[in-house]
Amino acid sequence: MVIIMNPEATAENISEVIRTIEGVGLEAKIMEGAQQKIVGVIGDKTRMASVAIDALPGVDHSVSISKSYKLASREFHPQSTIINIDGVKIGGETPVVMAGPCAVESRKQILEAAEIIKEGGAQFLRGGAYKPRTSPYSFQGLEIEGLKYLAEAREKTGLKIVTEVTTVEGIDPVAEYSDVMQIGARNMQNFGLLKEVGKRGKPVMLKRGLAATIDEWLNAAEYIMNEGTQDVILCERGIRTYETYTRNTLDMSAVAAVKHLSHLPIVVDPSHGTGKWRMIKPMAFAAIAAGADGLMMEVHPNPARALSDGSQSLTAENYREVMAGVKKLAKFIHDENLNPIVY
Amino acid sequence: MVIIMNPEATAENISEVIRTIEGVGLEAKIMEGAQQKIVGVIGDKTRMASVAIDALPGVDHSVSISKSYKLASREFHPQSTIINIDGVKIGGETPVVMAGPCAVESRKQILEAAEIIKEGGAQFLRGGAYKPRTSPYSFQGLEIEGLKYLAEAREKTGLKIVTEVTTVEGIDPVAEYSDVMQIGARNMQNFGLLKEVGKRGKPVMLKRGLAATIDEWLNAAEYIMNEGTQDVILCERGIRTYETYTRNTLDMSAVAAVKHLSHLPIVVDPSHGTGKWRMIKPMAFAAIAAGADGLMMEVHPNPARALSDGSQSLTAENYREVMAGVKKLAKFIHDENLNPIVY
Amino acid sequence: MVIIMNPEATAENISEVIRTIEGVGLEAKIMEGAQQKIVGVIGDKTRMASVAIDALPGVDHSVSISKSYKLASREFHPQSTIINIDGVKIGGETPVVMAGPCAVESRKQILEAAEIIKEGGAQFLRGGAYKPRTSPYSFQGLEIEGLKYLAEAREKTGLKIVTEVTTVEGIDPVAEYSDVMQIGARNMQNFGLLKEVGKRGKPVMLKRGLAATIDEWLNAAEYIMNEGTQDVILCERGIRTYETYTRNTLDMSAVAAVKHLSHLPIVVDPSHGTGKWRMIKPMAFAAIAAGADGLMMEVHPNPARALSDGSQSLTAENYREVMAGVKKLAKFIHDENLNPIVY
Amino acid sequence: MVIIMNPEATAENISEVIRTIEGVGLEAKIMEGAQQKIVGVIGDKTRMASVAIDALPGVDHSVSISKSYKLASREFHPQSTIINIDGVKIGGETPVVMAGPCAVESRKQILEAAEIIKEGGAQFLRGGAYKPRTSPYSFQGLEIEGLKYLAEAREKTGLKIVTEVTTVEGIDPVAEYSDVMQIGARNMQNFGLLKEVGKRGKPVMLKRGLAATIDEWLNAAEYIMNEGTQDVILCERGIRTYETYTRNTLDMSAVAAVKHLSHLPIVVDPSHGTGKWRMIKPMAFAAIAAGADGLMMEVHPNPARALSDGSQSLTAENYREVMAGVKKLAKFIHDENLNPIVY
Repeated sequence: MVIIMNPEATAENISEVIRTIEGVGLEAKIMEGAQQKIVGVIGDKTRMASVAIDALPGVDHSVSISKSYKLASREFHPQSTIINIDGVKIGGETPVVMAGPCAVESRKQILEAAEIIKEGGAQFLRGGAYKPRTSPYSFQGLEIEGLKYLAEAREKTGLKIVTEVTTVEGIDPVAEYSDVMQIGARNMQNFGLLKEVGKRGKPVMLKRGLAATIDEWLNAAEYIMNEGTQDVILCERGIRTYETYTRNTLDMSAVAAVKHLSHLPIVVDPSHGTGKWRMIKPMAFAAIAAGADGLMMEVHPNPARALSDGSQSLTAENYREVMAGVKKLAKFIHDENLNPIVY
Repeated sequence: MVIIMNPEATAENISEVIRTIEGVGLEAKIMEGAQQKIVGVIGDKTRMASVAIDALPGVDHSVSISKSYKLASREFHPQSTIINIDGVKIGGETPVVMAGPCAVESRKQILEAAEIIKEGGAQFLRGGAYKPRTSPYSFQGLEIEGLKYLAEAREKTGLKIVTEVTTVEGIDPVAEYSDVMQIGARNMQNFGLLKEVGKRGKPVMLKRGLAATIDEWLNAAEYIMNEGTQDVILCERGIRTYETYTRNTLDMSAVAAVKHLSHLPIVVDPSHGTGKWRMIKPMAFAAIAAGADGLMMEVHPNPARALSDGSQSLTAENYREVMAGVKKLAKFIHDENLNPIVY
Repeated sequence: MVIIMNPEATAENISEVIRTIEGVGLEAKIMEGAQQKIVGVIGDKTRMASVAIDALPGVDHSVSISKSYKLASREFHPQSTIINIDGVKIGGETPVVMAGPCAVESRKQILEAAEIIKEGGAQFLRGGAYKPRTSPYSFQGLEIEGLKYLAEAREKTGLKIVTEVTTVEGIDPVAEYSDVMQIGARNMQNFGLLKEVGKRGKPVMLKRGLAATIDEWLNAAEYIMNEGTQDVILCERGIRTYETYTRNTLDMSAVAAVKHLSHLPIVVDPSHGTGKWRMIKPMAFAAIAAGADGLMMEVHPNPARALSDGSQSLTAENYREVMAGVKKLAKFIHDENLNPIVY
Repeated sequence: MVIIMNPEATAENISEVIRTIEGVGLEAKIMEGAQQKIVGVIGDKTRMASVAIDALPGVDHSVSISKSYKLASREFHPQSTIINIDGVKIGGETPVVMAGPCAVESRKQILEAAEIIKEGGAQFLRGGAYKPRTSPYSFQGLEIEGLKYLAEAREKTGLKIVTEVTTVEGIDPVAEYSDVMQIGARNMQNFGLLKEVGKRGKPVMLKRGLAATIDEWLNAAEYIMNEGTQDVILCERGIRTYETYTRNTLDMSAVAAVKHLSHLPIVVDPSHGTGKWRMIKPMAFAAIAAGADGLMMEVHPNPARALSDGSQSLTAENYREVMAGVKKLAKFIHDENLNPIVY
């Protein structure tokens, strides 16, 4: 942390800043120039959380210069994390694909979807049994019944299951019926939920919040890891911007940012990221070329009849086409050793 | 809802759109021109939630034109809601003020703060016992102990208590020790929490999400109201934008927007809205002049030693000065019948 | 400027950073801790513009801590600037009001508008003769003819004229027929135009760019001032955010920010800031209460027939009502010495 | 356009809306339901520009449903445009690369850069002679001298030249010394400049504005095309969002959006789009995989000594590595017929 003093700050003001820093066991260094005086803080940033240095007299503002997360940080853990889910590796040499409908709507729908997903070559079936919806009058999910249909689909196809958990009470059933528990964008800073999920030790996929910075996102992962769960997968799903043509703005550069700052794997969700099925293919290809560890895509047997997010879902035919391209592209990048990421 | 067809949409495409609309019991009307064909949907929008009209062949895009909330809407309830909390009215002729430290830090701190708040003339003491923090290593609140200190402060001063509830398990204790339960910005779309809080019937203050639209915010209020609690107070606390000088961008126009769209009262929080204590006074004055029903402000006996948000907290002296101005301004606007809001 | 080194930065890396800083005549100071090494730069920041310190080996990132503008800065010029335009003072004790239609549409329209404006008590008539429009097919303004109508309105009413200049070729006529030349939001970083306008010495009103930070805005003012024109009025007119209910998000806190950082006067435009005529009154009141030096509002004799921005224009009747309130409020704040701004 | 009436709108209100629509030669259709009344407008949207329908009594709001640009639209011109610059095709089967320093700093620097660029395989040399900078005290470019150095580099290497024009007076020299004239992000809505550049007929590269929507961007292209220049290349260079880790947020989905909405070619600039040289490689790969027609990248012989944007510039060695990957990837996508874009 660096503290910038006002031009009119007095020597006593600076002394108080230094005493405050030293009071929490940190070291202060002064840099003094003709125009400005700066005080630098050396040591563990987390200790500064207990003082509001900006509120001291003579302080203009302060600038944070170190990260507030550790377990999620690549500095702390230089080797990339590979998460092994019964033989399916996330973060390894080959990208994984998670596909399926936005919501589990019926036994028939999810079993039909699972067949399509399996045949196209994805490793995971996705589908929400608990749906966080903007309006209380929209379809809210089949809940426990939906989870059971997912489990049945797993049994029939061998696909792994990733599904969202939205409440603390939902953790038990979701943990029982799934392979990866998903934290949705709206719950990225539902810290109570993060802590409870983190106590389970089961792999978690953490979607980026609607308007979360990368720093906040990695801090949210830190909440989970700090409780004991190291297997956290990050999922970029678009951020909220002024642009209205797309549902969100897919932040493709988050792949490179996360790879640089963290050892955790990252997958990209072009369905939520754009809101338009037409854009899934180019954005899926782009994510693979950028070095993402996987994709999450919405696929529905009949998008026009989907109870949720049909306009951002692929048909079976589109899905097969996207998968064919994704597989070729991933193999080429791997075989040619193209290594998009610069750590 | 209005559905805009592609220029190359066929008659069969349009028929399918119409069949789909009629299939959920709504009426469709076609508008056909040389350049474009449009299908309008008449009736209850919430029924369209079960079809993904954008995914039908020939559809370019669709535009939603009606609100998805009802209970929170002024159309549904033309009279402004006045919430009466043991004689303190929110939404009535005089604005209320909620003030206090960001977090309850100790018995001494909160009792000291309460004296200052009381003396300055606010009606509510604020202070968090459960603190949602970006980093797991920051101060997380005194929890149940903090709630008891708040209750003690209430007994000593007669101030009403507003404090945040962050988890379903926290609802019981927060409901017991407070007068108004606050839902924080990060939980605005924690729908599980909204529903459980809504079942209590106790007044709720719902802060606007970090990057929530006004439509999403009113839909979040709808979740609470739909469970039976009609006493919902909205709190504008700044939104996330590209500007970094302020912590958030205080959306003052939300006061006018909420008054037009909804019958619920709205208060403004210039502390979180700006992140700078210097800006509290001008933004508090502005909120009153814009027609807000109240203010929420952070005040700390010793901001520089605050465990959270010290730089956006007023000292006792600043607080008294702001309150003096707020009271004069509110009285003048009331006495002169200035009526800022145009419904 | 503060330079944060990578954890693995070598002593040679640090030396190179120091040599680079010293190479442009500045002083470097090292702060070294267990976890991080920081190099501070003391002296005139503008010299660092010629080195890309972030590109040196071992550098993680750098943080700018001082302002890059001087003439516009309150540090440089502690006294608030009062601009005197033939006796009408901007930045003094009483707020000024600039009102009129978005565009000059005809002689009849502008003369009729001028009468309304004059009668309501504003000091300035606004109206664009050159209109920057998103689409080339929208009305582009009456150009020189429009300027002459404005001059005629000035002669008849005694109102001062503020009108937009959009091109270098337009400076001569706009300077001839107006009292204040306006730079519109889309041209805030049209540096060629800023420089040429700055050479005239005539008062300039600089609107904030669509998505400009306060820092960029004050730097844009610096371009004008650096050419010799010190009479610059800033105009907050809303910024681009994710919220779509309003046309822009009016950043009311910019009033307080500008007053703290700069000595230049600032006016607020609630018409463009919200895009809705209903919101002009509450936002005008709020701006006055926040300490703004004036208002810019759109008023049209017949908003529904306006060639531009009718939905954010007041009718004559609404305008009179807003003005009555603004005058009372401004007088009260002045007489009671409420002083919203904390410098 | 669709006009949504207030619930309390009268029959007379609706009649006035219809009369207004018919008054500009368009056709109105009413859709009436229990809850809402809607009026649709059939015909050329541009005629509605002359009425402010939202300002009529009884109107709640209106929604625009058609595009305001034509020449730039794929509907109007279904075939993708291929721009041929002396044999180098933009928009054809192979992506082009434009590379070079941010600014022309000296004869030696640009000639040295040109050799690197040529050898790596790009077709265009970029480099600014006129630099729009936030601060008036930053390096503003070598102007005419810089253009001459670029021309010399072209002669020596055979590279085409793309360079920015910032003022109307600069059009003549830039047109003389370059192959493609670039309009920078800050000038995307400098309509006077767009019109003058459009009169030349010379190819133009139009960068997306700092916070421009895709609709505004295509309308800006329309300004150029409407003056006679059909050869417009769009350049996505990142948009302004709340995220501060990257300089801008590169909107990769703009590639797919532009391909769907327009026939014009689009290139991607990962240097400005991210602000970090480490991210150029993954984002360049992603852009190619997403179907972009080319790349613009900053390369500097000595980034740490760059007078502008060094931290987002590749060294010669990094550049060669990125180019090797880009070429392989582009060839693979072409040979395998992967076709990322879904029109």
